[in-house]
Amino acid sequence: MGRAHANALARLPMFFPDAPAVEREVLIGRDEGELGRAVEELGFDRYVTDWRDAIEEVDVLYNLGPNDLHPEPSIAALENDVHVFCEKPLAHTLDAAERMAHAASESDATAGIAFNYRFVPAIRLARDLVASGELGEIHHVRATYLQDWLADPKAPWSWRNAAERAGSGALGDLGAHSIDLAQFLLGEDVDRVSGHLRTFVEERPVAEGATGGPDTEGGGEVEMREVTVDDAYSAQAEFADGAMGVFEASRFATGHDNANVIELNGSNGSLRFDLERLNELDVHWDDSRGFETVLVTEPDDPYIEQWWPPGHVIGWEHTFVHENYEFLSAAVAGTDYAPDFGDGLAVQRVLNAIQRSDRTGEWTTV
Amino acid sequence: MGRAHANALARLPMFFPDAPAVEREVLIGRDEGELGRAVEELGFDRYVTDWRDAIEEVDVLYNLGPNDLHPEPSIAALENDVHVFCEKPLAHTLDAAERMAHAASESDATAGIAFNYRFVPAIRLARDLVASGELGEIHHVRATYLQDWLADPKAPWSWRNAAERAGSGALGDLGAHSIDLAQFLLGEDVDRVSGHLRTFVEERPVAEGATGGPDTEGGGEVEMREVTVDDAYSAQAEFADGAMGVFEASRFATGHDNANVIELNGSNGSLRFDLERLNELDVHWDDSRGFETVLVTEPDDPYIEQWWPPGHVIGWEHTFVHENYEFLSAAVAGTDYAPDFGDGLAVQRVLNAIQRSDRTGEWTTV
Amino acid sequence: MGRAHANALARLPMFFPDAPAVEREVLIGRDEGELGRAVEELGFDRYVTDWRDAIEEVDVLYNLGPNDLHPEPSIAALENDVHVFCEKPLAHTLDAAERMAHAASESDATAGIAFNYRFVPAIRLARDLVASGELGEIHHVRATYLQDWLADPKAPWSWRNAAERAGSGALGDLGAHSIDLAQFLLGEDVDRVSGHLRTFVEERPVAEGATGGPDTEGGGEVEMREVTVDDAYSAQAEFADGAMGVFEASRFATGHDNANVIELNGSNGSLRFDLERLNELDVHWDDSRGFETVLVTEPDDPYIEQWWPPGHVIGWEHTFVHENYEFLSAAVAGTDYAPDFGDGLAVQRVLNAIQRSDRTGEWTTV
Amino acid sequence: MGRAHANALARLPMFFPDAPAVEREVLIGRDEGELGRAVEELGFDRYVTDWRDAIEEVDVLYNLGPNDLHPEPSIAALENDVHVFCEKPLAHTLDAAERMAHAASESDATAGIAFNYRFVPAIRLARDLVASGELGEIHHVRATYLQDWLADPKAPWSWRNAAERAGSGALGDLGAHSIDLAQFLLGEDVDRVSGHLRTFVEERPVAEGATGGPDTEGGGEVEMREVTVDDAYSAQAEFADGAMGVFEASRFATGHDNANVIELNGSNGSLRFDLERLNELDVHWDDSRGFETVLVTEPDDPYIEQWWPPGHVIGWEHTFVHENYEFLSAAVAGTDYAPDFGDGLAVQRVLNAIQRSDRTGEWTTV
Repeated sequence: MGRAHANALARLPMFFPDAPAVEREVLIGRDEGELGRAVEELGFDRYVTDWRDAIEEVDVLYNLGPNDLHPEPSIAALENDVHVFCEKPLAHTLDAAERMAHAASESDATAGIAFNYRFVPAIRLARDLVASGELGEIHHVRATYLQDWLADPKAPWSWRNAAERAGSGALGDLGAHSIDLAQFLLGEDVDRVSGHLRTFVEERPVAEGATGGPDTEGGGEVEMREVTVDDAYSAQAEFADGAMGVFEASRFATGHDNANVIELNGSNGSLRFDLERLNELDVHWDDSRGFETVLVTEPDDPYIEQWWPPGHVIGWEHTFVHENYEFLSAAVAGTDYAPDFGDGLAVQRVLNAIQRSDRTGEWTTV
Repeated sequence: MGRAHANALARLPMFFPDAPAVEREVLIGRDEGELGRAVEELGFDRYVTDWRDAIEEVDVLYNLGPNDLHPEPSIAALENDVHVFCEKPLAHTLDAAERMAHAASESDATAGIAFNYRFVPAIRLARDLVASGELGEIHHVRATYLQDWLADPKAPWSWRNAAERAGSGALGDLGAHSIDLAQFLLGEDVDRVSGHLRTFVEERPVAEGATGGPDTEGGGEVEMREVTVDDAYSAQAEFADGAMGVFEASRFATGHDNANVIELNGSNGSLRFDLERLNELDVHWDDSRGFETVLVTEPDDPYIEQWWPPGHVIGWEHTFVHENYEFLSAAVAGTDYAPDFGDGLAVQRVLNAIQRSDRTGEWTTV
Repeated sequence: MGRAHANALARLPMFFPDAPAVEREVLIGRDEGELGRAVEELGFDRYVTDWRDAIEEVDVLYNLGPNDLHPEPSIAALENDVHVFCEKPLAHTLDAAERMAHAASESDATAGIAFNYRFVPAIRLARDLVASGELGEIHHVRATYLQDWLADPKAPWSWRNAAERAGSGALGDLGAHSIDLAQFLLGEDVDRVSGHLRTFVEERPVAEGATGGPDTEGGGEVEMREVTVDDAYSAQAEFADGAMGVFEASRFATGHDNANVIELNGSNGSLRFDLERLNELDVHWDDSRGFETVLVTEPDDPYIEQWWPPGHVIGWEHTFVHENYEFLSAAVAGTDYAPDFGDGLAVQRVLNAIQRSDRTGEWTTV
Repeated sequence: MGRAHANALARLPMFFPDAPAVEREVLIGRDEGELGRAVEELGFDRYVTDWRDAIEEVDVLYNLGPNDLHPEPSIAALENDVHVFCEKPLAHTLDAAERMAHAASESDATAGIAFNYRFVPAIRLARDLVASGELGEIHHVRATYLQDWLADPKAPWSWRNAAERAGSGALGDLGAHSIDLAQFLLGEDVDRVSGHLRTFVEERPVAEGATGGPDTEGGGEVEMREVTVDDAYSAQAEFADGAMGVFEASRFATGHDNANVIELNGSNGSLRFDLERLNELDVHWDDSRGFETVLVTEPDDPYIEQWWPPGHVIGWEHTFVHENYEFLSAAVAGTDYAPDFGDGLAVQRVLNAIQRSDRTGEWTTV
């Protein structure tokens, strides 16, 4: 993520010349060896190993660490009126997310959350179609986010498998994107949910050399560590204005690398998006019979004028360029930015409601 | 449906020469004018307007009427050891379905239920892949069945919109197929569910000329009748061996005509089927990177040897030929037939659990 | 082919009730054992082994044999005012095709040729779109017909590999369909062509038990026979009104079973068809950005009203039902039928020009 | 193109840290106003309006101008042992291309040509599959490159429509890519061709404000200028080792933005690529039934390790980064680079043979 943002910042001057000028001052991390290399590669001036050493010297903090490290530095920065851009989900607990959103509301600084898929041109176009009423009243949202990198039981344990650090698994990592996209596209929030979480593999090997990992020299056994988050989740949802939602994400969906798919059905039309083909939007118009595959690469498509001619596709990283452009422009101008910590909190409430529903077995109000 | 079965029966001799010989004796219905025409067109000897007049004279009863007409004639036939082939869902209520399954278990006759999609060659191939262990342990089932013929609020009311006749709406009509396919492919049943039903349009116009319809001559108002079933449903499920399921069907999914789609993800592979492309099965093998689109038209694919050369695709109606072949062969030979009324009851229990869950807001054991 | 037509005839009464009544009187063939079985299976009254014995007793002759057997029986039948329905390509030589077309023009009987893909609903819809001017002026036609059943050098020799029987290989077997479809959709003929033929495997084993095949008992060697036709062809074309055409077919295109694909690009729109998904037509409308996938299964689509509800797809064999309906109706009514022997001759002239061009290395006028 | 390369150069340090360091010294162009802006935006030190003023001061010349401006500066640079990277096609005439290739062979400098699609990871993977023998003997190549930006007769005239500047139209602009990809993937050259060129719109309006454009103030008529190149071409080809080729490109293929599609069929397998979905490669393996859609985003796919995790797709511009990395690395190391001017000349010979064949109407040896 640090690399994706550093790259995005480096590309702004050429493609978004009116973006604020950015200096990549200080990189924050833990491993000095890695930091030394990264400072060089990513074009920073220097590094520190304690965020407290950086926070008073910068205008903007990018908080891209594990979920449990989102709250404290973000809140401290906002209290110093340092702009904060924070990875998703907002935090590892609802309580922490609420404190962060509160800090943001008290601060003069801008607080953005990294729902970068809002900045895919096709998603932007989709939002415009919904907002314009082109699709009529939305009846259905179905969003799946499928990956398969944990389908192998020998795939190593990481902080993403620890509830106390990540908060949840596929739910917070992948589902957070689906829920935010749905709320963004519909312009309304999820009201109540019924959730279902599953952990298919209960413990995983700690990779050799990992922090706290095993010394397997001398034929020692591989250390196993408990998986305390979900490998997959599903949820049914009801939106404020009445649309039905079905959500699902998994790290066990063999055959899928990064299939973030969302479909909306309205009374007058429908649309469908798949991140693995992010330049395309399938649209069923009011007078269509089926779906039209729209290649979203025309000059008047969102953000495209800054890039390449029609049919010359962009990639995943371009969402970061758009996102940083919007975030930094808003921060400097003091204008509203979305998605902000309020949007992050709205998603966190849904994540939390899904977890509670899974525990109680009951529909739960967000 | 009558036409689909009459056609299937007519085609057996040419394509399945070892199928039992069939005489299309008597057609049962209500409207004498229509029956007269249909007897001619579908190749029957005669018609009756009361099923009681037919039931003692035939070897097999095809019960293809509205759901609330499934129980009485089916039970009467089975009590007479007349084989019964019944449309899905098995009945309009769980109680009736239980009585039907009981009658079947007491009878020497064969009782089949019309889950015809089990007889799609691609589905058959899919079942064989799962059963052989090729996909490993199944973690995920997701099945959607999307249509859009009721998205227009002016689409006319029919018995399919009446709870007392149909039992449910999209759930029983479309969801029944999804649930049966899932249970068939996995070889295990749904254990517990969380369900969600929605009715988007509360009343519909009665079509002019419909039984009990309005006389609009003289500028009379259009009669509206209440919709008492779901326009769409969704469900989360847990299977006996632990797979997660997500189900959804709608008659409001604009852009979709008959999109009966099911995907399974196993630890070693995945597969995906879409009824609108029924000759294809997408398979992610253990050594695949993505999905391979398999055109299921080779001579050693299920049922294909009876038909055409590779690449010469078959259609929806062919599922009925296969189904009738299997049903009639089993009936004559006295061997087991699947799907039988027990399978129909298994699905009905899931439908019922989804409805109960929707009412209570709680996960419900099947 | 005999089976496909017998099936089509058998299905007419139920689905096209106004089709002429048909009696399947006499089956013509060579092998008495096979004929005996086929008469039974396909519902004929009797068989003969010499077509001369049948031709004066029937109203219609279906000439479905190898290409070199098309001319003599067809001409004899037409001279007796017996209607003739002949497989494609019209003949094994241009000269024979011309004699057949001449006989047809002199006869009071109807002479049809089996370009059955004209009767795919999606193709019919495509033709209507072009004819209505919806696509504007057509600039491009590209048509490929890809199969792979001869990619294996051990695939056995058959009459289809013999120039004196088949006339040509992939060209006449597959290319004939592409060329007819192009001329049908555009409503204009190919003017001149540049052709290219290739034979990848020069000889093939004669299958054991084949007529004239080897006696391999006692360890005898497999008999090899020369392949004297093309395994694949390509052609560039210019149409009468100026469209450019590119054509290609192969029996060596691994991964393709029956990929008869055609695309047209007009000044105002485009369309694309693939026989392996024969219920679909991809259309780029004047106001479209990309292609819309149209599922051609609505009641007002060509022929569909006779079949099933929207989204309930038909198969390859249905093209034969439509074709026989049109042919027999025209024969009985004495009205024009297309495609007729004139259309067959038009295609044969293109096939012949492609072969001549391949020999001379020059563009050749049709 | 200047922007695409400037961007690529700017991105090398972060993603290909071992790439040679690059200073963007001097931008060459004609319009001082535009140059001033571009120097700023693209990160150059200064600009000149005569390439002669730059050529002795730089290590590398990027020659990205119109085709007729390729020869003179490239040759001058190579004579000064300045590395040259030149846009495709190599030149506007075969004679000029030969002089350029000769200059390259005499120079110690590296001379690369901008066939950037060789640097798509999926194409690289495809080449490896062919080279490894995985697909067996290649029988078929079919390559189309479809765009539609000139389908509107009012689309303005540009140098790309002038034979004396561009050499050819769709042929040299799009076809050059197809031909190079085919020769690259097969590892062998086209031997002989039959070509077909067409110009659908004979003259086009000169855009207001264009160099030499019309003064339409005062109601003057729009100036029209003649189109002297092809709007579309097709070609049949024979490769050195016997594969058949079919090529086509158009600027009139409505519905297509940038559809650079190539398919190969070998005796043991096939593959298919579409630039509009550049992260995907469809592969038919020896033991496959259909085609598998491979998402070419795994760490061990060509170039991917430098970028993002699996499923996080890259875009068109990334091909430029790979290309510049390889070109600059080879230039500094003095190692071979491909595609070089020899490869450019090989393509130019095919382009020329296609044009000659179109004029003579005969197959033409390359």
